[in-house]
Amino acid sequence: MSAQPYSLLIKHILKMPIAQASRREIVYRGDRRFTYPQFVERVNRLGGVLAGLGAAMGSRIAVMDWDSHRYLEAYFAVPMSGAVLMMVNIRLSPDQIAYTIDHSGAEILFVNSDFLPVLSAIRDRLPRLRAIVLMTDEASPPDLPEGFAGEYEALLAQVPAEHDFPDFDENTQATTFYTTGTTGLPKGVMFSHRQLVLHTMVIMATMAMAGLNGRISREDVYMPLTPMFHVHAWGFPYAATMMGMQQVYVGRFLPDVVCRLLRTERVTVSHCVPTIMHMILTAPAAKDIDLTGWRVIIGGSALPRALCEAGLARGLDIYAAYGMSETCPILTMTQLRGDILDAAENRNEAEVAIRISAGLPATLVELRVVDDAMNDVPRDGKSVGEVVARSPFLTPGYAGNPEASDALWRGGWLHTGDIGTLDADGYLRIVDRVKDVIKTGGEWISSIGIEDIILTHPGVAEAAVVGVPDERWGERPVAFVVLKQNAAQDEEAIRSHVRARADLGEISRYAVPDRIVIVEALDKTSVGKLDKKTMRIRATETSPHAVA
Amino acid sequence: MSAQPYSLLIKHILKMPIAQASRREIVYRGDRRFTYPQFVERVNRLGGVLAGLGAAMGSRIAVMDWDSHRYLEAYFAVPMSGAVLMMVNIRLSPDQIAYTIDHSGAEILFVNSDFLPVLSAIRDRLPRLRAIVLMTDEASPPDLPEGFAGEYEALLAQVPAEHDFPDFDENTQATTFYTTGTTGLPKGVMFSHRQLVLHTMVIMATMAMAGLNGRISREDVYMPLTPMFHVHAWGFPYAATMMGMQQVYVGRFLPDVVCRLLRTERVTVSHCVPTIMHMILTAPAAKDIDLTGWRVIIGGSALPRALCEAGLARGLDIYAAYGMSETCPILTMTQLRGDILDAAENRNEAEVAIRISAGLPATLVELRVVDDAMNDVPRDGKSVGEVVARSPFLTPGYAGNPEASDALWRGGWLHTGDIGTLDADGYLRIVDRVKDVIKTGGEWISSIGIEDIILTHPGVAEAAVVGVPDERWGERPVAFVVLKQNAAQDEEAIRSHVRARADLGEISRYAVPDRIVIVEALDKTSVGKLDKKTMRIRATETSPHAVA
Repeated sequence: MSAQPYSLLIKHILKMPIAQASRREIVYRGDRRFTYPQFVERVNRLGGVLAGLGAAMGSRIAVMDWDSHRYLEAYFAVPMSGAVLMMVNIRLSPDQIAYTIDHSGAEILFVNSDFLPVLSAIRDRLPRLRAIVLMTDEASPPDLPEGFAGEYEALLAQVPAEHDFPDFDENTQATTFYTTGTTGLPKGVMFSHRQLVLHTMVIMATMAMAGLNGRISREDVYMPLTPMFHVHAWGFPYAATMMGMQQVYVGRFLPDVVCRLLRTERVTVSHCVPTIMHMILTAPAAKDIDLTGWRVIIGGSALPRALCEAGLARGLDIYAAYGMSETCPILTMTQLRGDILDAAENRNEAEVAIRISAGLPATLVELRVVDDAMNDVPRDGKSVGEVVARSPFLTPGYAGNPEASDALWRGGWLHTGDIGTLDADGYLRIVDRVKDVIKTGGEWISSIGIEDIILTHPGVAEAAVVGVPDERWGERPVAFVVLKQNAAQDEEAIRSHVRARADLGEISRYAVPDRIVIVEALDKTSVGKLDKKTMRIRATETSPHAVA
Repeated sequence: MSAQPYSLLIKHILKMPIAQASRREIVYRGDRRFTYPQFVERVNRLGGVLAGLGAAMGSRIAVMDWDSHRYLEAYFAVPMSGAVLMMVNIRLSPDQIAYTIDHSGAEILFVNSDFLPVLSAIRDRLPRLRAIVLMTDEASPPDLPEGFAGEYEALLAQVPAEHDFPDFDENTQATTFYTTGTTGLPKGVMFSHRQLVLHTMVIMATMAMAGLNGRISREDVYMPLTPMFHVHAWGFPYAATMMGMQQVYVGRFLPDVVCRLLRTERVTVSHCVPTIMHMILTAPAAKDIDLTGWRVIIGGSALPRALCEAGLARGLDIYAAYGMSETCPILTMTQLRGDILDAAENRNEAEVAIRISAGLPATLVELRVVDDAMNDVPRDGKSVGEVVARSPFLTPGYAGNPEASDALWRGGWLHTGDIGTLDADGYLRIVDRVKDVIKTGGEWISSIGIEDIILTHPGVAEAAVVGVPDERWGERPVAFVVLKQNAAQDEEAIRSHVRARADLGEISRYAVPDRIVIVEALDKTSVGKLDKKTMRIRATETSPHAVA
């Protein structure tokens, strides 16, 4: 055969906007703007810098930065060089940051000057690190700390504008980052060029199907509100670049900056966790911004009904997606379907129910909901089981941890650890985490369902429900609640609110929490998710009926 | 590593609508309607029938049918069985049909009863064929001809509704069909599972980018007007199935049937060659149909400006795509871009110019326009050269023809044989075929450009320009013209019409054809393209100044 074999490499994503010569820009905080040709040149120059620093096939290159054009440059130049991009979770503790950088085997580190204090505290625990590059937003960078290889912009300026990136096997590893599980040390996941190219295509192909909500196109202005160290900002920067979209990066997440950029850059597409959306919708700076038509994908945690309705009331096209660090991450995305809405008794209600579900499997994603013996549970929207998946872009395992890898992939399917249910139309609803699930009197309770009800109480801003051990029932639900400003502190009123819904038959009577605990703020993990592990400990410690 | 490897197999396309349980239908001529679950069951049954007939990995299974649900079932069940689907071009001569079926090595043939006369004429030249299945639209099928294995529906009914399709390497061949080149015997191209899955994803991902024209979604009603034997109906049936779209298949192409289905099935998306679109726009039955919003992709030949404008005037979203049998076929697709239109002096004019260009490279398609030494010509929208391509879904070569394969892939790029030009925004315009190009007095002439001008003459229905040998100038252009009904036969008026545009400087004076030949119909190839090879012979034979 005479054909040139064609591998799925990340450099082929970047060839598209070059070929199409987008006239759009990559914007950083509104201050710095790059055309696509300039961006491509900077990726080339970063390739030259990496080569100069001795990066080779398989070298681990770590990055510690806020969301930025620089991070996007690293998304491309590092894997295109055959090296592996290690995205450091800057919200972890210094101990964990040291562990993850060292465990990844990183040789070179690109670090934002904001993180120099953390770095100096852990530098002596990173013996494998042999070159550090300083990144800074300052016009005149500070004096280079001792032992640094150079400053990012200065290094880029010293190398040629052209750079030849090599060809190699599409199964070459491209990225790695660490997920903080409920137990043990952070675990390293890994994704190959083939996986990231296919994930990019799957995001685009899946969004092509959207007819009634969540439509995107090359005309959009994209601004991620998910950290770029977190599962490749859900993979969207690769898709946005392939489409030649206008892209806006916010730097350190500050609500005022985000609100300003939303307005001045006319952002049309974003994605974030519920907490961030809640923050924006309640930020004084956002009050006067017209958010109509802003399409926002909510992930990381379930989209609470109250938040969805608040977003819809502001004119947002807000909807959920579902995935995890191990899955690149997109597994499902919520899309309204005319065939379903047309048949619904109450179209608005059906629409909200779809928007807050986890959605439909993305293209090339196979999902099952199974019992302990890996048998499918009925697709009736009621029967629950663990969500397991297959697709071309799931992590093959955890770095250096065969035991956890085997557990993740037992039976040949990736186990999400989430409890869900599929309905006859193929929509997935996540009911709970395997480890968070509340089982009381032998029956499952969906903590998300109770949270949704509590959130409809007019005085409640945020809510989280966890199960605590109980001698009689096995477990009992406890709700942590953050009140709205000026709301009366009345736990019993909230309990009555939930009980009234149980009286209506919407939830079981045994799902009404025994205790409502009013707190200043909910415990969150480093990536802004509800930290139910900590809350469960807190609830157990304060329980009058705790199991010893 | 603990992961289940995940191959790109055609069965994974079909898993999506199952998982998503589309409530849409597959419709055949408006008479027969299948839900997606029924369709999936029929694919399973066809898998059982193929197994019963002894089809194995690599078996060649040929199909002779009009566009139908049956063909769609074969698109899936044959490759999913590990066999190779051979799509017979029913418009070829009986000799060529015999040659292509035999050359492909087909063992089993599925044949529509309409083609029984052709089959009986060539049956003795198909010694490798060991089983024939009859397909028919009749409620009660005719008596089974001697030597047939059975009738399609009867065979489907005899096997179980469930069928396990095997797993295998994604590079396994899935399809083959024959392209009739300008010289020699038909040549067999071939595509693998990986290639067809990626092509499907690329169609969807590319269409996801469309913001201003050509948007599709799962809400659309799809009706191909391209034969399904012709490059997988350009690959769209796979994408439509993956999206769970409503799909309509027209059977034998009859303008009245097409017009009826357009109306009754509320079709929103189609694709066809210019000839078919011309036929529909001028069909009496289409006069009273509201075609507003019908999105039609024109391929196979360039989209003439006059046809584009006629379509726009009827409210169509009409635009061009470009590819060939060797390329699966999508290489480029026309998409309007706000960044370009906003900057244009005349927005309407800029829009039409984009719609009739070949468009932008699809995702994962690399295009170059090169000179004879394979150097890129400038991207200035003027410099011309041959269009060459790389992508993951180009045929690796021609079956059993290493010489032609090497020529196709010389220099590691697939040579399209088309002369084109890329502009600074990445849009491709096809100027001519390498072999059709007119070179007069040392200068290239675009025959398409002259055709476009002739077509703006009020009396002209169709036009084709070819070059004929000329002692003085090397070649000179000759135009073949089909007049509109009742138009006066006035060759000189048409020549003056072209000359007036040359006087305005729009084209060179030497591009004005020496002769206008008025004909009843233009020569067409079996797939409805202009047959310039035949026209050139015809023009040369009748030329008063022909080179001996």
